[in-house]
Amino acid sequence: MPKLIDHEERRKQIAEATWDVILEQGMEGATVRNIAKKAGLSLGALRHYFSTQEELLVYTMKLVKEKATARINKISIQDLHPKEKVLKIILEIVPINDETMAEMKVWFAFTAYFRHKKNIFDAQHDGIFIAVQKLVDYLDQMNLLKKNLDIEIEIEKLYALIDGLALHAMLEPQRVNKERIVRVLVHHLNSICVNESDR
Amino acid sequence: MPKLIDHEERRKQIAEATWDVILEQGMEGATVRNIAKKAGLSLGALRHYFSTQEELLVYTMKLVKEKATARINKISIQDLHPKEKVLKIILEIVPINDETMAEMKVWFAFTAYFRHKKNIFDAQHDGIFIAVQKLVDYLDQMNLLKKNLDIEIEIEKLYALIDGLALHAMLEPQRVNKERIVRVLVHHLNSICVNESDR
Repeated sequence: MPKLIDHEERRKQIAEATWDVILEQGMEGATVRNIAKKAGLSLGALRHYFSTQEELLVYTMKLVKEKATARINKISIQDLHPKEKVLKIILEIVPINDETMAEMKVWFAFTAYFRHKKNIFDAQHDGIFIAVQKLVDYLDQMNLLKKNLDIEIEIEKLYALIDGLALHAMLEPQRVNKERIVRVLVHHLNSICVNESDR
Repeated sequence: MPKLIDHEERRKQIAEATWDVILEQGMEGATVRNIAKKAGLSLGALRHYFSTQEELLVYTMKLVKEKATARINKISIQDLHPKEKVLKIILEIVPINDETMAEMKVWFAFTAYFRHKKNIFDAQHDGIFIAVQKLVDYLDQMNLLKKNLDIEIEIEKLYALIDGLALHAMLEPQRVNKERIVRVLVHHLNSICVNESDR
């Protein structure tokens, strides 16, 4: 079905143009007109792929999520020490390079813009909370967590730490650079994990 | 100088109208026209107090910061156990009531909108980082911090935790409610402070 594949490919290209427009001009610049121009399409052609601006924006955010998920899945099957694996996965969420920083900026702009529209917003949300839950559960299954931890609170805390660092990496990149982010995360993971040399 | 006082009073009223408009309609609704209407003023009258939209928005954010600072200063002179005082101050930043939630929402909308305009943005920023620095230094001076902590990392971590919780309180208020926020913060403060009953 080559036609269907072309259709999906074209939708992805338009989503990437949307992403570029949001990064350059913010959400207020993400009009169907500007996006069509960026993608080199007529308004009519764009409407063939996305009938409303909302549909286009929701698809664009879904693509951000899929890209991050694909990177995380790739790491999760690597042969790494569990603590190192968890750190590497978190570093796909907290922005430490151009790709993840662009994702954070698009996420931030999108969230601020759509926070009030419950039906759009909820569908895009809580993926990271569930991911963090899985990471903590994984450390637990590997017998790496300290005894007597309040797991529920540790999940909430790590989740807040990740999004707080992500926010600061975007807003204060001079101080909150890659080296500092890694230092804070390693420090935190060590604080909840057993010291393996002691075992 | 009654005239000067009136002038400042009126500017505050306009800032409050701006705040209401941002909460109701987001930044994209915060036009000079909408704000004048909300404040019950003509466009010309509003321009007498603020010559540009930018000047008005910057003033509005300055007011958010001043209100939070005033509440924090009030707590800092209260006769409380240092750890309790630190917790109470943090709870003026992380939204746990209508007032602080409104401040968070306005801050978030404002930041997303103005992030690209360096000259406006920087002036409004980093107040919380400095506040967190002071809180950790205060615990240190009171001899409440555990020995051998990496103070610099602890400041960065607490700062990320505070802003991450604030973000989640706004985006996921069902789960991240007051009770849960207090639990995470108390847990974190206990993890960096000495157990006083042991002393």
